[in-house]
Amino acid sequence: MTPVAVTSPPTAQPLAALQALVGADMARVNALILERMQNEVALIPQLAGHIVASGGKRLRPMLTLASARLCGYGGRRHIELAACVEFIHTATLLHDDVVDESLLRRGTETANAVWGNQASVLVGDFLFSRSFQLMVDVGSLEVLGILANASATIAEGEVRQLATVSRPETGIADYLKVIEGKTAALFAAACRIGAVIADRPREEAEALDAYGMNLGMAFQLVDDVLDYSARQADLGKTVGDDFAEGKVTLPVILAFDRGNEEERAFWSRVLCEGGRRAEDFHRAVALLTRHDALGETLEWARSRAEDAKRELRAFPDGPARTVLADIADFCVDRVY
Amino acid sequence: MTPVAVTSPPTAQPLAALQALVGADMARVNALILERMQNEVALIPQLAGHIVASGGKRLRPMLTLASARLCGYGGRRHIELAACVEFIHTATLLHDDVVDESLLRRGTETANAVWGNQASVLVGDFLFSRSFQLMVDVGSLEVLGILANASATIAEGEVRQLATVSRPETGIADYLKVIEGKTAALFAAACRIGAVIADRPREEAEALDAYGMNLGMAFQLVDDVLDYSARQADLGKTVGDDFAEGKVTLPVILAFDRGNEEERAFWSRVLCEGGRRAEDFHRAVALLTRHDALGETLEWARSRAEDAKRELRAFPDGPARTVLADIADFCVDRVY
Repeated sequence: MTPVAVTSPPTAQPLAALQALVGADMARVNALILERMQNEVALIPQLAGHIVASGGKRLRPMLTLASARLCGYGGRRHIELAACVEFIHTATLLHDDVVDESLLRRGTETANAVWGNQASVLVGDFLFSRSFQLMVDVGSLEVLGILANASATIAEGEVRQLATVSRPETGIADYLKVIEGKTAALFAAACRIGAVIADRPREEAEALDAYGMNLGMAFQLVDDVLDYSARQADLGKTVGDDFAEGKVTLPVILAFDRGNEEERAFWSRVLCEGGRRAEDFHRAVALLTRHDALGETLEWARSRAEDAKRELRAFPDGPARTVLADIADFCVDRVY
Repeated sequence: MTPVAVTSPPTAQPLAALQALVGADMARVNALILERMQNEVALIPQLAGHIVASGGKRLRPMLTLASARLCGYGGRRHIELAACVEFIHTATLLHDDVVDESLLRRGTETANAVWGNQASVLVGDFLFSRSFQLMVDVGSLEVLGILANASATIAEGEVRQLATVSRPETGIADYLKVIEGKTAALFAAACRIGAVIADRPREEAEALDAYGMNLGMAFQLVDDVLDYSARQADLGKTVGDDFAEGKVTLPVILAFDRGNEEERAFWSRVLCEGGRRAEDFHRAVALLTRHDALGETLEWARSRAEDAKRELRAFPDGPARTVLADIADFCVDRVY
């Protein structure tokens, strides 16, 4: 044990570098988010403020800012668009928590736990509409198209996920489509619009789109590992949410696929019942470990992170490219 | 009793005239709606098809078509935009039913009753995103702005409504803001975009906006009357939904305002409890009748319908103007 342990874990350094790179812009994004979620209907800023403040890393809007920087963009539309990306993300979080019937998110009570499902659905709709209003202010039909497509793809991915709940026999291809929709599509769009507003050639927009898509896949794959991670539990984070909700993620698919008959029966039972008993969760982790399902999922994530980094070769070397490459590693190495 | 009684009630004639005026266009709108709600995720077209088929009058998209006609529009963008308007309306219906915990809509099981709240929230999000994708295809930033604003206003109105539930002491001004948001804003936008795509002067766009706004107010005021109407019950329609949900509408506000202490206590109790007992509902109707609250609400609606008709004077006489004027009367005289 060294005293260093009380500071950020070393894996968080790329995140700190990203925050440093776009910090000034991000302060303007945060101010804009606060400004645009105001409303005379008090419940809207209350509830929106709760979900916005409950934090998260603000990775998606930072990706828009860093991508714009990478493309040499010198205007101020990246500020508005980063706020749009965060509004869309926030709206989907509000709706997700209703869908998942979650009472906690990142250790804090969810909006639906505090204000009820009704308010969460409606304020989610409000933030989603706000995002499109902001995009109209920016005035780029191409950007509007990218984010409208991403929004439809997110909803599609979430519906697709519903159909896989409690079904450990879900195919890997189906799982990949779920996470591509529910997570990676917005990462891809967030990065792509940096090139679009900078008026860069289509190939660069596509390279940033592919970077974001691969990064988002890596991010979600790791999320799905962390839900079963003892390290997470040590850090005081919640684990077992996916398991309790019967969500079928890659670790489960791999362990189910490799399990014997009795193990498969276990997975089918607990994912249907909602595995809320501690002994079921411990058994699940033991099976995932026995079949190296968590390690292999991390390998999938690492491979996607490498794919992401490869897309950055199209861009000149410099601080933005370095930070974005390191963020790909961070998405795999992160412990939260 | 005459045999005529089995055909449409005479009050429905303006609706039939509107349907005749825009019938050919509406067939294209319906085909486009069906086409654009397709998706390889089967639950999306299943659930969207259920809500789209459960019908309703398709008043909002028909208003876009008729407004475009009134403005002499000769292109085909009104088809796409009418579909956009219907998608937004459908998305809000799906979310409303989740919010209201409704099990029946127009005598049919709601989507949330059949597929659950989760799917309803997510397919609502999908349809909402689809609407913006279609708008991007149309390519008018002005129209995108109008419909993004309307969507934000709808959500705002719905949240505002949440804050009035079970509170019969709600002021009339607050109630009017609720219905302006949740209903009239989309009517206004649906009409306005007819003038915008036809490239008519701002005054005409504003006249159509004001027509739609007043029409929507009249429509919702009448809806709020019909929820307590014996005639509705005779027709086999549901009544008492608002009452059971504790919704505070103008009839309730008027009766509460005019009631004695004992009557006020009654309203406060049943709206908080959720007035699900038949004798409570009968008592409510008796109080509304004693204070002429339904009749007076209808007068408010009639006044808004007259305001709506007045806005049409800016346009040349002709079949579209006649039909739109008659629709204003229909919205007041309708029995369903």
